[in-house]
Amino acid sequence: MNDQKVKINGARLQRSLEAFADFGRTDRNGVTRLALSEEDKQARDYFRSCCEEIGLKVKVDDLGNMYAMLAGSSSEPPVVMGSHLDSVKKGGRFDGVLGVAAGLEVMRTLVENNVTPRVPVVVMNVTNEEGARFEPSMMASGILSGKFDKDTMTAKKDTDGLTFLEALQSIGYEGDAKNRLTEAEAFLELHIEQGPILEKEDVSIGVVECVLGMVCYEIEVSGESDHAGTTPMSMRNDALFAAMDVMTEARGKLAALDADLVYTIGRVNVWPNIHTVIPNKVVFSLEARHTSADVIAEVEKIIQDMTVSPQKAACNVSVQKLWGRDTVWFDPALCRTFEQLASSLGYSNKRMVSGAGHDAQFMASYIPSAMIFVPSVNGKSHDEDELTSWEDCEKGVNVLLDAVLTIVG
Amino acid sequence: MNDQKVKINGARLQRSLEAFADFGRTDRNGVTRLALSEEDKQARDYFRSCCEEIGLKVKVDDLGNMYAMLAGSSSEPPVVMGSHLDSVKKGGRFDGVLGVAAGLEVMRTLVENNVTPRVPVVVMNVTNEEGARFEPSMMASGILSGKFDKDTMTAKKDTDGLTFLEALQSIGYEGDAKNRLTEAEAFLELHIEQGPILEKEDVSIGVVECVLGMVCYEIEVSGESDHAGTTPMSMRNDALFAAMDVMTEARGKLAALDADLVYTIGRVNVWPNIHTVIPNKVVFSLEARHTSADVIAEVEKIIQDMTVSPQKAACNVSVQKLWGRDTVWFDPALCRTFEQLASSLGYSNKRMVSGAGHDAQFMASYIPSAMIFVPSVNGKSHDEDELTSWEDCEKGVNVLLDAVLTIVG
Repeated sequence: MNDQKVKINGARLQRSLEAFADFGRTDRNGVTRLALSEEDKQARDYFRSCCEEIGLKVKVDDLGNMYAMLAGSSSEPPVVMGSHLDSVKKGGRFDGVLGVAAGLEVMRTLVENNVTPRVPVVVMNVTNEEGARFEPSMMASGILSGKFDKDTMTAKKDTDGLTFLEALQSIGYEGDAKNRLTEAEAFLELHIEQGPILEKEDVSIGVVECVLGMVCYEIEVSGESDHAGTTPMSMRNDALFAAMDVMTEARGKLAALDADLVYTIGRVNVWPNIHTVIPNKVVFSLEARHTSADVIAEVEKIIQDMTVSPQKAACNVSVQKLWGRDTVWFDPALCRTFEQLASSLGYSNKRMVSGAGHDAQFMASYIPSAMIFVPSVNGKSHDEDELTSWEDCEKGVNVLLDAVLTIVG
Repeated sequence: MNDQKVKINGARLQRSLEAFADFGRTDRNGVTRLALSEEDKQARDYFRSCCEEIGLKVKVDDLGNMYAMLAGSSSEPPVVMGSHLDSVKKGGRFDGVLGVAAGLEVMRTLVENNVTPRVPVVVMNVTNEEGARFEPSMMASGILSGKFDKDTMTAKKDTDGLTFLEALQSIGYEGDAKNRLTEAEAFLELHIEQGPILEKEDVSIGVVECVLGMVCYEIEVSGESDHAGTTPMSMRNDALFAAMDVMTEARGKLAALDADLVYTIGRVNVWPNIHTVIPNKVVFSLEARHTSADVIAEVEKIIQDMTVSPQKAACNVSVQKLWGRDTVWFDPALCRTFEQLASSLGYSNKRMVSGAGHDAQFMASYIPSAMIFVPSVNGKSHDEDELTSWEDCEKGVNVLLDAVLTIVG
């Protein structure tokens, strides 16, 4: 069944997004709902009650992941819609929660249309996607997919010294490991883009083909501190000027590599950072993301080759790789399904990549997975100004509904 | 009288420098002797007792400046040798204290040679040259010369909230305003170079013609924070890349201005300074020093013209002048005297400029003043590694002795 006449209820979707935003709403209409906080508990409780109200059965696993299930004709592995209810500090009202509210709205639509799916349909709230309180991000999906070790992760502490496990128990959301999602027919995640492309190109739906591979390096340039007034330019070993030179040279080379490459120097610290003293140390981060492992390898070569010409100054460059990840490709068939359904609904759509990480990239290691994006106004996310229009939210959820109906029909 | 046979006692000078270094000596053989601290009090007490021991009369003014006087045949305005006993945190054993110990050693030499000077000779310890505990630097000479307001300055607080006046009173060094130095025939300051030139050129004595004029600006470059993974390069308004561009352009223009210009970007702060977030703000200092007001004016034009090309990014540059000072020229006759005396003693010497500030630059506004420098090993100062050889110290003090003898003979 893929009846184009069945649509989600946009007004109801808006109401549930606004209801979720009450749990941790900030003065500036953003949200602070850190993982396993009281606000997270309230949002979880609300999610559970909404699901139970329409007859779904809610289970919780040992990581606090929540699964609300609509039974299918068979008990074969389910189709799962999922995202996360946690936010960063002073984040927005859409990142993560949109995917959960979308799943809830799809469920309500299925129930009110008396749909009995071929296999169970599940809407999942994945614990601690943001990693804003307990690092790393995508912690629970990382454990589910075997990337992370459970004991190591549940011992992670917040800044108050409370462990993840203690926090999970304190909000009453430590469930049973047997409830973990171990297999599924598909994992579908609707998310805001968190970037400017869809809005700039006036496109409603982004069909996400992959999550970009990335590398992150830390580069230290060391020189010599001397008095800013008494040291002639020719006798200086200025770590900042040397760092600027290596940054500028790297920028030039990176810009020439590939138009789709993104690279960022986000963090720069200078020592001793006093206006009258020539800097003796600069440490900066340089991260880059691209689909192609070959391009990333060229990026790494550029970074590793960073040097300061001895003719310019006696400064040293040391380069440390902080981490890297390979590009994760989503299920091609699911991507085609999303694309076709968006077009059938008359929504403009385009294939794109995700520069940001998402739970779906870990789920993709053991479940056919795919994502769609809806536009972020001004490309903003992790910010109280984060905004997606109600109309775009509604379109995204209609595509998600149709995908579920297509798969389980 | 300018008897070349009269020389200072190098071994005694070394002993007194080592004795002073005991007041606040650090583990790494540097000195922490902040103005008006217990260590400063001990150094002052020792200085006073050494002076009184050889029959000098010690007076203290309302700012804690100490004056140890050897009476002259007449009571006309004195010849003053001066520098400071205070240090920065983890500073060296020579900056400032050398000029005071030098004055003491000259006095000892005069006394043991039964010299009765034409006019009084004074060795002066100027309070709080460094400004490391109570900003600004050169506070007391600034008040003496009318640059700073006494009430404003004595109300300055250290990080514990104690005022300059309270600290001055607590160490028992608040004297009488009538003891202030109001006129003198000359103010002579021997100091370490705090730069690498004398050592690199293997020259013993620097005859300081001036203290460089300088300007210090703070530049803020503002852009837009976006997600490092999801924002294409062409859609970014990266404040750091924009700041690098304006810095690089300014460096190029400044380097072309004049070979003697020194310019430093000592302080750089980046917001939000997170590796995965495109920076939205960079604030940096840019200071430059040169003898010529015309060159400094060109520097200011370069700084004020800083802009980010709108084709590159929508970033703004705002420029704020923090302060500036004009070049202070020392007394030409005294410079010639120093130069001739150094040559007569067979010491290599050269005319040079001071890029750093010194009390003598304020004294110069109402007293004919001049300075000589002795070499700093590796150009280091304000550092525990600060070092000047005993031999170079001795040469500097011999030149100072001969200058005093020339003037008062």
